[in-house]
Formats: sequence, structure tokens, C-alpha cells
Amino acid sequence: MASTPRAHTPQSTPFRWDGVEELVYKESDTTFRDVTRRVLAGAEAGQGVELRYFEVGPGGHSTLEHHEHTHVVVPVRGQGRALVGTEVVDLAPHDVVQVPAWTWHQFRAVGDEPFGFLCLVTCERDRPVRPDAEQLAQLRSIPEVADFLRV
Amino acid sequence: MASTPRAHTPQSTPFRWDGVEELVYKESDTTFRDVTRRVLAGAEAGQGVELRYFEVGPGGHSTLEHHEHTHVVVPVRGQGRALVGTEVVDLAPHDVVQVPAWTWHQFRAVGDEPFGFLCLVTCERDRPVRPDAEQLAQLRSIPEVADFLRV
Repeated sequence: MASTPRAHTPQSTPFRWDGVEELVYKESDTTFRDVTRRVLAGAEAGQGVELRYFEVGPGGHSTLEHHEHTHVVVPVRGQGRALVGTEVVDLAPHDVVQVPAWTWHQFRAVGDEPFGFLCLVTCERDRPVRPDAEQLAQLRSIPEVADFLRV
Repeated sequence: MASTPRAHTPQSTPFRWDGVEELVYKESDTTFRDVTRRVLAGAEAGQGVELRYFEVGPGGHSTLEHHEHTHVVVPVRGQGRALVGTEVVDLAPHDVVQVPAWTWHQFRAVGDEPFGFLCLVTCERDRPVRPDAEQLAQLRSIPEVADFLRV
């Protein structure tokens, strides 16, 4: 987006915004499947946070990771499921999810529709870290978590 | 909300969240009509911002005001219209609105349904300021703005 805020960014079609480009979720990474990213408001908004829209295609998932920075997530499209810490939660549009610092998390689409969510994050943030073998084994010791995880 | 983030805050009914109380929009003020406020994520989220849900009833409107702090707004329910600066824009769910510093703004519901929107704001912020008579006259010199305003 431009460095000057646009007062109004309407949608050209549902969940696609005028002048907001589709970005890859991450470069050179095989730890996720079918995820796109759009920055709806960035540093230009003057709040030190970015508002992004992520969309996970049917059967897709984000990377299992943790980091110091936090997330606030609001699903807006379709149905999903998330791991937050050691809890697996079913997500519907307009639920609220908070991911505290250093909390394992992963998002998956459920069903045949894309799962889209708004995600708040600070502009300055640390790099995500993936679990090592020991951490992964520990997560998988919880049957519900083991069923959920895609790595 | 508690000072420890809740991982998942589901909705009890659409646009009503478990454990999130309805708040008055503002105390002792007659400059708005039929607006409620809910804090979906606050300082506990660790990002220096609050995510609030505002709902404007049919025929209702927020206060016409400006301030140094900025807003990022995402409508999620019904139809609305907003003044941002000297621009009147029609709003549909999942559009994005950015209100820069010291920019006049007001939100109204359109039609028979409540108009609900997410609104991002920094936790620490200055007090909103309403227009004086001269500023109001200047705003009203624009016919479209004059038609829109409710003060």
C-alpha cells in the first residue's frame, strides 16, 4: 500500500480489495499449504500494527510456529480450526483468537470453502521459530493436537 | 476482559461474544445516537492497540469528531456510511477505512439493520475534539457533507 492512508478501500469482489495485492504467505518454505496474504493497513495507519488478511484454501494450513510477538485473529470467511498452545479450537467468522507470546499456533481450513481471517501484528517483530524434534514430540503427546498438526 | 488473553472468544450469538460485556459508547454525551461498544482485545494482547466492536442501531450515528490518534475500521455487519475528512463513503462488510490523525469522522447506519464495525485504536490516546461553530460551518459548505452530518 502507499505510505499515505487511503480513506476507503472497498472490495472489488468479496474478500478482494481494490489496489491491495495478493502476496505469498512466505517465501521458500514448505511448511504451509495454500495460504495467501494481503496487507489491509500497515505502518501508514500510525498505530504500530499491521492488519493483514490471510486466506487458507480448502485442505490448506499455515506454518506451525511460535514467536515473541503476539497475534489477534478474527475469522471473516468460511470455517477453520486452530491450535493455540495445546488447545485446538473450532473457528467461525467473527470469533476472536488471541495468540500470546511464545505460544505454538497453526491455522487450518475446514470444509470446502476458503478460510479467511484478519490478523493483527506489530510492525516490528521477531522471526517465527518452528518446533524442534523434541518440541514436536511433546506437542504430539496430546492426541487431539497430534491429529490436528500438519508439519 | 481479563488481563490474561483468552485463546478463543467464540460468539454466543452472531456479533455477541462470550464474556465480552456491552459498554456504553460514551458517558454523558448527546452527540451520538444508539451506539454500543465492546472491547474484543485490549492491552493484554500486547500490541499497544485495542480491537473494539461498535454497533450502530438503525437511524443511529457516532459522534462527529477528530483527534490525533488514528483509526482503522473494518465493517462486519450491515450497511453504513461514513464521513472521513470531507469524503462521504458507503461501507459494506469487510471494506477497510483508515482515519488519519486530525481527520473529521462520523459513522452512520444505513437501512433497517444494525451497522457493526471493528475499530482499531492505540491504547494510549488523546481525547476526541468536536468541531466548533466555524469548523462545522466549513464542513457544511460541502452539500454532500451537510446532508450526511448529524450533530
